[in-house]
Amino acid sequence: MEYDVIGIGNAIVDVLARADDAFLIAHALEKGAMTLVEEARSAELYRAMPPGIEMSGGSAANTMAGIASLGGRGAYIGKVRDDQLGDVFRHDIRAAGVDFVTAPLAAGAATARSLIFVTPDAQRTMQTYLGASVELAPHDVPEPLIAAGQITYLEGYLWDRPLAKAAFLRAAELAHAAGRKVALTLSDPFCVQRHRASFLDLVADHVDVLFANEAEITSLYETEDFDRALTRARDCCETLALTRSERGSVVVAGGATRAVAAAPVERVVDTTGAGDLYAAGFLYGLTHGRDLVACGRLGGLCAAEVISHVGARPQAPLAELAAAAGA
Amino acid sequence: MEYDVIGIGNAIVDVLARADDAFLIAHALEKGAMTLVEEARSAELYRAMPPGIEMSGGSAANTMAGIASLGGRGAYIGKVRDDQLGDVFRHDIRAAGVDFVTAPLAAGAATARSLIFVTPDAQRTMQTYLGASVELAPHDVPEPLIAAGQITYLEGYLWDRPLAKAAFLRAAELAHAAGRKVALTLSDPFCVQRHRASFLDLVADHVDVLFANEAEITSLYETEDFDRALTRARDCCETLALTRSERGSVVVAGGATRAVAAAPVERVVDTTGAGDLYAAGFLYGLTHGRDLVACGRLGGLCAAEVISHVGARPQAPLAELAAAAGA
Repeated sequence: MEYDVIGIGNAIVDVLARADDAFLIAHALEKGAMTLVEEARSAELYRAMPPGIEMSGGSAANTMAGIASLGGRGAYIGKVRDDQLGDVFRHDIRAAGVDFVTAPLAAGAATARSLIFVTPDAQRTMQTYLGASVELAPHDVPEPLIAAGQITYLEGYLWDRPLAKAAFLRAAELAHAAGRKVALTLSDPFCVQRHRASFLDLVADHVDVLFANEAEITSLYETEDFDRALTRARDCCETLALTRSERGSVVVAGGATRAVAAAPVERVVDTTGAGDLYAAGFLYGLTHGRDLVACGRLGGLCAAEVISHVGARPQAPLAELAAAAGA
Repeated sequence: MEYDVIGIGNAIVDVLARADDAFLIAHALEKGAMTLVEEARSAELYRAMPPGIEMSGGSAANTMAGIASLGGRGAYIGKVRDDQLGDVFRHDIRAAGVDFVTAPLAAGAATARSLIFVTPDAQRTMQTYLGASVELAPHDVPEPLIAAGQITYLEGYLWDRPLAKAAFLRAAELAHAAGRKVALTLSDPFCVQRHRASFLDLVADHVDVLFANEAEITSLYETEDFDRALTRARDCCETLALTRSERGSVVVAGGATRAVAAAPVERVVDTTGAGDLYAAGFLYGLTHGRDLVACGRLGGLCAAEVISHVGARPQAPLAELAAAAGA
């Protein structure tokens, strides 16, 4: 097959700056969450933001960059505007080794931007203006591309807008029609809250591989008990990867459930992209015939790299890190 | 006085990526230099560039960000376009605490961009498309602003284009007419090569405080001998700060010449901005009544901070670092 994974998501440029908790409180920001904001609020927060760095982001795009860094073959579908930040996004994902052919918007909203405030505890708080990314439409999902990938990987964030949601469902249907697998990340506990009923249907009917962290999976099943959520999820998806920060992950496939320890990290600098890169490692393993525990370890290793520096995409070649770790 | 320092320079957004020496050779890049490129060449190199990070840059702008981080009061004059990268530049310098009021261009070339390739030896190689920055004109230099600053600090890079050069000379004349000091950095050995005769006149007639590294000062006086260059420079400027990388700096004022050791750096990651931040520390010291050696030490301390991470602007509050170091 031509591709290991086809990723579909909101194409976003991140603007990262350090901030303290007092800043989050002063601006009424929900710590640790991804909050959607309108253009005016984004501009207002940007004015208040300390000096930043711009880096390509977007959850599924970060995952695809990770898969490419591991040596996997990937393509990405997402919408930017034909503006400077759109050029940056396109350049970076292609330079990472991921095919990206979605036509940019020629008019309308600017390329999506996420203002990311990183607090001294390495936690990230995201304020996202979706801009052009929400114009991703069903016609942006080419049937031959989806058919050419072992797994189509979708981010839950797409569910936030109707057009992108339609594109999401088309991709899932095309993948299954071609005999391929569909993977989903629940993205964010607030995203799960916004779309719980749809996500429950989606997970039950369309998803083969599910990624979620503890907050997301317990929110989905409206329980505070992780094990209860795990049991529920196990009935719905053939493959599950549930991340638990420094406690590693719990992975499920073919009736087996395994706990995988987290990879060691010298110093956690910025947790932006941790879940995205876990998914990268796991999906690379899954599409390269690795066993379940090896997939979870590879996920943990990639997450450990990305949280050891500022920014949500890998800075070291992950294939070398994986080889050095014997993964 | 309202300001310690008024900085004038090319307003540039940096695009930083890691690259190896083979990349520099394959693309015929002059290692360690700042090379001016046209728009088409910039686009061609960007296509070949690995994934990057965008950060505000510009030599004098970096210096001003450093002065503000030390607690100094500064203003900056430089030209951007009213595009997304121009917004980024304006946001970052203001968020750093520097006044910036130069009107952006409403049409024409895009905001200047410097592609910076950082090799494993932490050396940086810059390919700069000057874009909108060269439209900086004499009318962008307000007399009251220059009169309100103790020192007007200019970068040699301005000399590369006639309009900016006229703006540069106007600023120097206004500063002296108001009884203020003029400081200059020679910027880059190739920049010195391009403008040696003019720079010699400038240094002799208009400059009170001169910054240069070893390669620049020896190029200016066409000698391979640092001490000979130092002797020549001493005759021209009342204050001199000559940087020598890991050998620290040689500082001169009021007939005294002192060698100042470099500040220790755990690991040199990226030398981009080393000279700019040295100038920040030195100028802060000079405008706050510190003695010559203290100025040099403060410069070294700021340079040490900026070379310990990727990017040309300080990431830690320099005032706290300086206090901790007893500087």
